[in-house]
Amino acid sequence: MTQGSLLYTDFLAACRAVCGEQFVITDTAEKQIFESEWRGRQKGDALAVVLPASTREVADIVRLCRDANVAIVPQGGNTGLVLGSIPTAPQTAIILSTRRLNRVRQLDSDGNTLIAEAGCTLAAIQQAAAEVNRLFPLSLASEGSCTIGGNLSTNAGGTAVLRYGNTRDLCLGLEVVTANGEILTQLHGLRKDNTGYDLKQWFIGAEGTLGIITAAVLKLYPQPRSRCTALLAVQSAEDALHILRLAGDQFGPALTTFELISRVCTDLVLQHIPGTRAVFAQPYPYQILLEISDFHPSAHTAAVWEDFQQNLIQANLLADGVLATSVAQADAFWKLRESISEAQAKAGRNLKHDIAVPVSRIPEFIKQTEHLLSSRCPGAQVVCFGHMGDGNLHFNVSTQAVDRQLTPDALNDEGVSRLIHDQVHVFGGSFSAEHGIGAMKRDDMLRYKSETALSLMRAVKQALDPAGMMNPGKIL
Amino acid sequence: MTQGSLLYTDFLAACRAVCGEQFVITDTAEKQIFESEWRGRQKGDALAVVLPASTREVADIVRLCRDANVAIVPQGGNTGLVLGSIPTAPQTAIILSTRRLNRVRQLDSDGNTLIAEAGCTLAAIQQAAAEVNRLFPLSLASEGSCTIGGNLSTNAGGTAVLRYGNTRDLCLGLEVVTANGEILTQLHGLRKDNTGYDLKQWFIGAEGTLGIITAAVLKLYPQPRSRCTALLAVQSAEDALHILRLAGDQFGPALTTFELISRVCTDLVLQHIPGTRAVFAQPYPYQILLEISDFHPSAHTAAVWEDFQQNLIQANLLADGVLATSVAQADAFWKLRESISEAQAKAGRNLKHDIAVPVSRIPEFIKQTEHLLSSRCPGAQVVCFGHMGDGNLHFNVSTQAVDRQLTPDALNDEGVSRLIHDQVHVFGGSFSAEHGIGAMKRDDMLRYKSETALSLMRAVKQALDPAGMMNPGKIL
Repeated sequence: MTQGSLLYTDFLAACRAVCGEQFVITDTAEKQIFESEWRGRQKGDALAVVLPASTREVADIVRLCRDANVAIVPQGGNTGLVLGSIPTAPQTAIILSTRRLNRVRQLDSDGNTLIAEAGCTLAAIQQAAAEVNRLFPLSLASEGSCTIGGNLSTNAGGTAVLRYGNTRDLCLGLEVVTANGEILTQLHGLRKDNTGYDLKQWFIGAEGTLGIITAAVLKLYPQPRSRCTALLAVQSAEDALHILRLAGDQFGPALTTFELISRVCTDLVLQHIPGTRAVFAQPYPYQILLEISDFHPSAHTAAVWEDFQQNLIQANLLADGVLATSVAQADAFWKLRESISEAQAKAGRNLKHDIAVPVSRIPEFIKQTEHLLSSRCPGAQVVCFGHMGDGNLHFNVSTQAVDRQLTPDALNDEGVSRLIHDQVHVFGGSFSAEHGIGAMKRDDMLRYKSETALSLMRAVKQALDPAGMMNPGKIL
Repeated sequence: MTQGSLLYTDFLAACRAVCGEQFVITDTAEKQIFESEWRGRQKGDALAVVLPASTREVADIVRLCRDANVAIVPQGGNTGLVLGSIPTAPQTAIILSTRRLNRVRQLDSDGNTLIAEAGCTLAAIQQAAAEVNRLFPLSLASEGSCTIGGNLSTNAGGTAVLRYGNTRDLCLGLEVVTANGEILTQLHGLRKDNTGYDLKQWFIGAEGTLGIITAAVLKLYPQPRSRCTALLAVQSAEDALHILRLAGDQFGPALTTFELISRVCTDLVLQHIPGTRAVFAQPYPYQILLEISDFHPSAHTAAVWEDFQQNLIQANLLADGVLATSVAQADAFWKLRESISEAQAKAGRNLKHDIAVPVSRIPEFIKQTEHLLSSRCPGAQVVCFGHMGDGNLHFNVSTQAVDRQLTPDALNDEGVSRLIHDQVHVFGGSFSAEHGIGAMKRDDMLRYKSETALSLMRAVKQALDPAGMMNPGKIL
């Protein structure tokens, strides 16, 4: 089908009959916001952007696409980081935006469940839960614009995985439009159901390559009664690991967040982000942002924390530590953590690596990899921070200070990324802990995944989407 | 292939070359324990029972079976309740027992992970974790003999699902021998990994129909510091639901167990199980067994509990309540709950239904279904108990008191089960919450699952096991 052809005109007319005139966008200027990666790094070229308003309309569009041999790129908030939600090949696919599927269909506060349509923003869902004194714990930087359909399709992580798990762990059921245009409905919100294969698991994390998630039943949780936020200073990642273990033993599931921040990150933030200031009188190699969300009163938890912190100091594990005494102070601690990406961007270009290794191997991984980098690319600066409690580090590298005249043998940027991902592989880790594959990391898939794993994935892709029309060029 | 044929002899010789002479059992008497459902309800007829000692040997056996066109019934502890681990068709399959795959390969107490081979008993894994002061929270009646491979293949539930989830939620990775005889190894124990489809999810809960789980990385947890066990008396399931919600709000993740026990169950236990006695001075319609496992000291949690209980009594939600003051008393409370099945068996035959409905609809479900039963089958007695916190009830029915001369129109046993499962279906529930499908519930699958769901399952089965050699006659 080519743009302007009769077939194309027929197809568009049929789409318009389903969704309404104004919800099938073909105007180049109007399409652009949907076709562009949100940081402007790449732009796709879609046949049209189609915005169905109901699951039934999604199914109708999928069947039209199937009959016309048009591919579909499902898109939520278009906030992904791996080019998963824009077309790869030009003029072969529509973008199917879920943004009009934005109702919270049901909220069951006794059953602790909420049914949301795929296009609901994460923030809207958090808000709906909070209104009935419930918590939907998924929390991400892009929560104001990312959608739950995208969160599910990428199995998003975020800052409370240590306590609540990834998005997959927060889902009790899905409604999906299959590649065949059928509607699979499993939205009863059961906590236990062992009647055959657990179909939702196939679609979660599949980045829209097996079907289109149109709605989900999500788990809600009681709202914790107290929150204690502490910023800790430690001399090494080994000490941080030790503290992670002890904090888990002490606080159990109340330990909600355990974020590692290397000194370089703190320096960047203090330098580039207005309104931030150092918490400790002197710099330390690492800081830890730790949060406890408890069901006992704050005063009780704070008292337990103070005892615990004293013990850490006496055991020489902790150099210094501050428990936030106000919401404002807790927010300031969080700002230090959350401004790292912005500070890095202001400091100049850097190579990003969203990696995971087994939690207990993080110190060894950091030490070995920094050592390798300093010998193979002198001057490269590691900006290491992230969700240590989950084994997930943003192990970013700035190569701006590499003096190519002095060190002509130094690895180029691609070589640096390869070195890091090879290291991750040696440590049994993941080259994409929370961002997914999209179109961007397919080469890494081929490099690091076993042939057995890839052939199983291909077999299931072939089984569920034999025509290859669901988000082609992504993952596989 | 028929027993005694040349082909059969060659096949057995090849299996013996892989596993060793004594680990390929063909003797009728020796085979019997593997071929029989553990309660003696059915017996299969296997070509042989093969006991490989390593993943490599499993893969070799699978390839031999593939080449000889012999089906495979994987078997762990053979403790299932739905005929999932014995052959259906005679003389067409081997039983592949995992019981020699029984090593704990690795224990990482910093990373809170344990790698166990499929044939490890659940009790052995709990024990290995406890030895390093860690908790593996899965707990089932059959834990002394069931294996983790079976637990994973059936996505087993148990008594701590409310806090820790089903077996699926306790697994970070698998090693699997595919139907093709290849080995898929994903045992690094990452907490986050979004590199393509999450393959382990396909094999968990698949009852051995897509491949053979040979090892798994399991999540460990810190050991709670205190445990409070209470037995509560309530006037209605509505009150129980209300208390469930308030207890969740009060204790958050510390609320570990919330079991509902109807008066009939209590009466049966007191009547048939020696050494049990009533906790309350008078009988109540329902009792609740509630457990809080906390990281604060027992005295603190007990004090919070006493306050909470007083509030429930003042709100007229709670008729009476006793907090166990000793381990012996807590054990006595648990015995009341855990003896129900035995007491029922002693009282005579009953129809078992392992059902789930949305948690918030349990009171309505019980009321409506009891009402329907009493009108359609007067004299039928409901023995209702189970994991109310998970929406999972064992809604069993004794029809012994039905007087067929008085009520000739009363439903027969099959009709009773159909009535209950139809009710479950109307409530959006599950006809098999924690036991799976096996060979026993395939008819229910066809009746209650949507055609879309079934066709997706069949497509994936076809993709991963095109020859249909993995546990044929189970699930689909």
